[in-house]
This record gives sequence, structure tokens and C-alpha cells, in this order.
Amino acid sequence: MGVETLLDAVKFDADGLVPAIAQQHDTGEVLMVAWMNRDAIAETLATGRVCYWSRSRKSLWRKGETSGQAQTLVALRLDCDGDTLLLLVEQAGVACHTGRRSCFYREWQAGELAVIAAPEVSEEALYGKPS
Amino acid sequence: MGVETLLDAVKFDADGLVPAIAQQHDTGEVLMVAWMNRDAIAETLATGRVCYWSRSRKSLWRKGETSGQAQTLVALRLDCDGDTLLLLVEQAGVACHTGRRSCFYREWQAGELAVIAAPEVSEEALYGKPS
Repeated sequence: MGVETLLDAVKFDADGLVPAIAQQHDTGEVLMVAWMNRDAIAETLATGRVCYWSRSRKSLWRKGETSGQAQTLVALRLDCDGDTLLLLVEQAGVACHTGRRSCFYREWQAGELAVIAAPEVSEEALYGKPS
Repeated sequence: MGVETLLDAVKFDADGLVPAIAQQHDTGEVLMVAWMNRDAIAETLATGRVCYWSRSRKSLWRKGETSGQAQTLVALRLDCDGDTLLLLVEQAGVACHTGRRSCFYREWQAGELAVIAAPEVSEEALYGKPS
């Protein structure tokens, strides 16, 4: 059976999108959350490289296309009510546009949002612009 | 500073909600995704027990109130653009209403959605109704 079987099981929202969690497959680290539409899911499964839908640019977003920080798909899972995807990935380098491994680098501690991870690379190195 | 500092940093959607990923703090297992509003976040931080917002019931949803499968908050993290929460939790029993540990129990394998985890408890045991 083809990818249509999967797409039929996904409950897309009114904009035709579904949130996708990217998790590093071996360490379990939650890296980021982004959105996928039908085309992004189909392309990801066809190529093995994770492709999202950029809501701001309104176009397919091949993760790492600009920065080189691509995600190779290891497994794709769907939750019980079909409205969230979990992508197990091999993350090349960092996932966050700030140069941090994970986008979840702020933690509520003692009444303030503490920064719990430092950038591993500069935004300039990722995108060729000053950070 | 109080919880208002955190709430001001969260970008709630048009319905006043933000998605929250629950992850078992020590194993890294992604358990479920649900929604929180300002009151749910404030109650969770005040009590240390995770409280979501039920979109279907339009009320606060104290996870485990019916089933006993509560989540104790270990840490609350916010992503780079402020529109997704990551809750590190200690999950009592199972997270999924189907009796499975995680809601992400279906995986796309060889052209079909394979069920990769069995229920650990019956829905009847969780909710007092036939499964």
C-alpha cells in the first residue's frame, strides 16, 4: 500500500497541517516541533529526509537545505487520535535556528526562564548572516 | 517573579492555547501531546501535577483525575519561538487512553501503520467501562 494509507489516517487541521515532533532517535532528545502537510509527509517518506511545511514562507521546508542541518528519517509514528506525528530522526548538527541542539533550551526554574543550553554554532555559520 | 513572567513568554494561539508535549523525564519516551491554556499552566506549576485544557470538554483536564494515571511535573521547557511547551514528567502508569504507555503506538512500516505497542491495562480498568 502507498502513502495514501497513512495520509488517510492523519487528521489534518483546517489549514491542512499536522504538528510533527522531531526526536533524536537514539538519545530521545526532543529537538523541535514543526508542521507538515500532505506533500511534506509524502516527500519525507519518499526521500528519507525530513521536509516540513513552513507556515511563514507558505512553502515546503526541506530541513537543512540552507543550514546543512538536515534530518534523516528513522521512523514516523502517529498518535492515538491521529493529529500529531512523532518523527524519530538522525539530526545532523543542531536543530534550532539559534545554533542550539534543541529548540527547547529555556526551562522554568525558580520563577524565571533559565537558558539551559548554549549555541553550538553561530547563526552566521548556519545561515551566512550575523548572529 | 511569578508565573506571569512565563505566561508572557508563551505565544498562545487564537484560542488561547499552546500545545504541550509530555515526555517521561528519565527514559526520554514521548508520551502524548495535549493543550494548555494560561490557567492550566498556572495550576500545573502551582500543584506540580500536570493539568491540560480539554478542547472537547472545554474545561481543565487534570491528567489522571479519572484514570489515576497522573503526571508529576519534573520540568517545563519552552521552545525558541515560544509556541510549544515540553513537559518532563513522571508518568504514573500509562499515558494513553487506550491503555498503552505512549499515544504514539502506530508506526509507518513497509506501507502500513503497524501497531508497535500493546495495551498494558484495559480501558475498563482505567475508566470503568468496557474496552
